[in-house]
Amino acid sequence: MIGTVYLVGAGPGAADLLTLRAARLLAEADVVFHDALVPKEILALAPRAELVAVGKRSGRHSAAQRFINKRLADAARKHRVVVRLKGGDPLVFGRAQEEIDFLRARRVAVEVVPGITAALAAAAGLGISLTQRGVARSLAFVTPRVGAGEAASSWVGTVLAADTAVIYMGAGQAEAIAQALIAAGKSQRTPAAVIENASRAEARAAFGTLADLPRLAARLSGGPVLIVLGEVLRNAASAEQPATARTRQAR
Amino acid sequence: MIGTVYLVGAGPGAADLLTLRAARLLAEADVVFHDALVPKEILALAPRAELVAVGKRSGRHSAAQRFINKRLADAARKHRVVVRLKGGDPLVFGRAQEEIDFLRARRVAVEVVPGITAALAAAAGLGISLTQRGVARSLAFVTPRVGAGEAASSWVGTVLAADTAVIYMGAGQAEAIAQALIAAGKSQRTPAAVIENASRAEARAAFGTLADLPRLAARLSGGPVLIVLGEVLRNAASAEQPATARTRQAR
Repeated sequence: MIGTVYLVGAGPGAADLLTLRAARLLAEADVVFHDALVPKEILALAPRAELVAVGKRSGRHSAAQRFINKRLADAARKHRVVVRLKGGDPLVFGRAQEEIDFLRARRVAVEVVPGITAALAAAAGLGISLTQRGVARSLAFVTPRVGAGEAASSWVGTVLAADTAVIYMGAGQAEAIAQALIAAGKSQRTPAAVIENASRAEARAAFGTLADLPRLAARLSGGPVLIVLGEVLRNAASAEQPATARTRQAR
Repeated sequence: MIGTVYLVGAGPGAADLLTLRAARLLAEADVVFHDALVPKEILALAPRAELVAVGKRSGRHSAAQRFINKRLADAARKHRVVVRLKGGDPLVFGRAQEEIDFLRARRVAVEVVPGITAALAAAAGLGISLTQRGVARSLAFVTPRVGAGEAASSWVGTVLAADTAVIYMGAGQAEAIAQALIAAGKSQRTPAAVIENASRAEARAAFGTLADLPRLAARLSGGPVLIVLGEVLRNAASAEQPATARTRQAR
């Protein structure tokens, strides 16, 4: 075994939101296994590497995951720097544990390089802090997406208990999400934002309330989507937001 | 008004966990207002800039915050690139909103550059995913710290409702945190980790249960601390962890 597998966060999309460490590892990489969502500007940072696209845009069969695991272990037998590049941060909704456990069990060295998770990029684009003194002292990331054979998760309870909530992988489920939260007691008037393609040139944001969520989501065009809920958004739509002028025009 | 104020995340401590965008802005900066916790290796990335240390290690008087706000606005009248450098991510427990609102009200251009928040660096160091299919589908960041004049927050309820919880700024309160959570119904046997100086050379981690928290925290040496709680840590202390051999020896 000669190589190390680096599980590297590719960040939210903008190439300059990679970390310096991630950029250095890409420059040194012999082979890069990347998610389908990683933009080509980021892959261009790995000129020496063989590029291997793995994984689908959302969901993935276990068989496919086992195949990825095996290819990573095989690559570490042949190459010094093997990069597994995942959108956002590898350890937030990135299914990294399955790869880490498989590689460790086979004595393959693994290191994780964190990335900017989409929620932080979305908040930066809006210029709105996800925590605010006196308004929001807790922040939750949840997903309503449930894997095959997995019990329905407690995402509704977590959203209700957190001052600010960011819902990942909720695209196409906006109506079900709003219904579930309102039925559980979340106020229909909770400020809400839907952000698509956070950090990218084609970023868009729409603001409203929890009750508006289906209408806000209907304006989107198929990119990665985050839903943000909470009082921190109270003045969002009316605030001065020079940094999001483009996204506001897009509304 | 000639300049822009960039609220830039300095990340968790390791200089190469800055984003490429943050590094570029530091290189171009005319003046950098930085938190006391930002390491000198990161400040060295701003060779052209006047460096101004602002803020205390924890807590800050409102008067001091108003003084910082005013200095940022003044700097933007004289300089093109004004960087306000904050540890971690500016929008997660960074008090950024007060600065953003002040500057926008005075028509100063503001942009936010996200950073790696400490929780993601701590998880990367451990090689443990904060979300895992079938184990943890929700992740919360909370702080028990309450500002002057601010009501006690709902952090306990958020921790109870989340599959994985990361407690920021809990150093020195480990016993009170454990008592509050156990009294509210969190199992004493919930797997727990205390991580100090995540991502830095002097990083340390200690593993146990919620009931052990005071004992785990007693081993620390005064650096920035995170507490992680949840089933994702179940196999942490026994797992193969090549990337954290150093921190495990430190125990």
